[in-house]
Amino acid sequence: VRRLQDVGEQAWIARLVRRLAAGGRDRRVIVGPGDDAAVLRSGSRPLLLTTDSLVEGVHFRAGWLTPAGLGRRAFAVNASDLAAMGGTPTFALLALEAPARTPAADLETLAVGFASAARRAGARLVGGNLVAGPRLGVGATLLGEAPGRVVTRAGARPGDVLYVTGTLGGAGLVVRRLAAGGRGRLPEPPCRLAAGGLLARVARAMIDVSDGLLQDLGHLCRASGVGAEVHAERLPVARSCRRVLEDRAAVFAATAGEDYELLVAIPPGSGRTLERLRPRLGCRLTAVGRVVRGRPRVRLLDGAGRTCRVVRPGFDHFA
Amino acid sequence: VRRLQDVGEQAWIARLVRRLAAGGRDRRVIVGPGDDAAVLRSGSRPLLLTTDSLVEGVHFRAGWLTPAGLGRRAFAVNASDLAAMGGTPTFALLALEAPARTPAADLETLAVGFASAARRAGARLVGGNLVAGPRLGVGATLLGEAPGRVVTRAGARPGDVLYVTGTLGGAGLVVRRLAAGGRGRLPEPPCRLAAGGLLARVARAMIDVSDGLLQDLGHLCRASGVGAEVHAERLPVARSCRRVLEDRAAVFAATAGEDYELLVAIPPGSGRTLERLRPRLGCRLTAVGRVVRGRPRVRLLDGAGRTCRVVRPGFDHFA
Repeated sequence: VRRLQDVGEQAWIARLVRRLAAGGRDRRVIVGPGDDAAVLRSGSRPLLLTTDSLVEGVHFRAGWLTPAGLGRRAFAVNASDLAAMGGTPTFALLALEAPARTPAADLETLAVGFASAARRAGARLVGGNLVAGPRLGVGATLLGEAPGRVVTRAGARPGDVLYVTGTLGGAGLVVRRLAAGGRGRLPEPPCRLAAGGLLARVARAMIDVSDGLLQDLGHLCRASGVGAEVHAERLPVARSCRRVLEDRAAVFAATAGEDYELLVAIPPGSGRTLERLRPRLGCRLTAVGRVVRGRPRVRLLDGAGRTCRVVRPGFDHFA
Repeated sequence: VRRLQDVGEQAWIARLVRRLAAGGRDRRVIVGPGDDAAVLRSGSRPLLLTTDSLVEGVHFRAGWLTPAGLGRRAFAVNASDLAAMGGTPTFALLALEAPARTPAADLETLAVGFASAARRAGARLVGGNLVAGPRLGVGATLLGEAPGRVVTRAGARPGDVLYVTGTLGGAGLVVRRLAAGGRGRLPEPPCRLAAGGLLARVARAMIDVSDGLLQDLGHLCRASGVGAEVHAERLPVARSCRRVLEDRAAVFAATAGEDYELLVAIPPGSGRTLERLRPRLGCRLTAVGRVVRGRPRVRLLDGAGRTCRVVRPGFDHFA
């Protein structure tokens, strides 16, 4: 019997998505399973729908987050999926699982933290669910819309320039330190909703970097039917990460995940439009590589143009 | 410190809903947290949004359901929430949690069972999520629409007649037998989407009976600001339940839950319209009581008009 641990999360999902697609298309579905969010035909403009969850012992441990911080994070990781399509959230659901011994006020603070984060992003918490369970689990669903173009993972073409917002490796480093028993809190994911909406005007493809840049870029490449090259020395590695990991910082930053930054493929001719948008993004935007012809392989290149050896391109729940 | 087990699921949710409501209204939200589904303004017709999850060891145990049956059930319990508002599902998300040792094919069969159930109801599985966890958990979100009127829990008035679809107590009896170590499978929840859509034409208030008729009727009463009386001997008690529990069958059927039937408050003057709809409901519809003036108290009356003693009106995850 092949188990999830033999197959891996990514491969399991890819197989299911293919099997579901074989069931035939539905003209109400613009983008189905397998992208950052689903895009649905409903009325005059498309709806976006996405879900993601944070589970104690898997995504965080007790003490890594305050109750309010955990609520805000559950919103942020879902908003990141909408941002990666150029969308913006409108409504949210919160599905909680908690042990009976959980302080009632803590769980309320968590829910209010989620609702406040939603409100700041222009969305409303409109419902949810609470069940008993052995440890804390926070599932969220966001419904959203796209003011302009919707950008998927598919659409990147050879020659496109790959950009990434913000910095990489800082959050992953904190997770590594906390997982090793260190003290501190998980940093809050950045909000890239504004940047995502602006970048959607010029992007051919976009994805959020949650599991590791190389792995998430791999998803974009497979969806687009292209390969990619990333230059290690061009990566916007977080200062903390560079200081602690020195010459191992770039590979770490390219694979650690937890960044919730946006990775964008932009045609080389869009440079001037991009420069006009840049001041309004609210974050750095760094060219890190390019899309190349060929099979969906992602190569991390060192300063001499050699391929860096990467043991694991990113996070997989089961691999 | 007050813990969830001190407060109870229902009271915790009620408090959170009040706190969220105090944050001010949003004109895009027609029905917010606290009903079977949220009702949202979006384009020309309202959207419905709901989420519910099934967790191993809480809602079921290994062996109570086949993988495909668990997938179908996860869809059905959510569809039931839409049915209770007169809605119908259009799109679905599936959020899975599973141990690494889970056979990959079983989890795929579960997801395909969910997708098939969605398709039979006119909806599409458009996305989801998979995380590692200590035991199986199946969360689902449904987006829906209402072809006609949307019916909430609020709106019942004194004098309205209370009806319930199908039969009660049969599923609860199976759960009790299985929980005591008996063999067998959980029965599939009935699909009341068609009935819900038709009943929405005449209903003043509606709710689905998932946690126990008396408890769910209590929610309807609180939302409507009314009381209710239910006649034990009029309840459509499942034959299996009557046979096994004899004179305790009615109280069991009124409190056991797991039925996923609809409870509807209909004005007494709508009798003729109701009779016209009845043949198309696809299920029994039984008058079981009436809505009364006064505080939101639910009384179960015996044949002599005396109030039956009920220890627990229904299921609560923490109480």
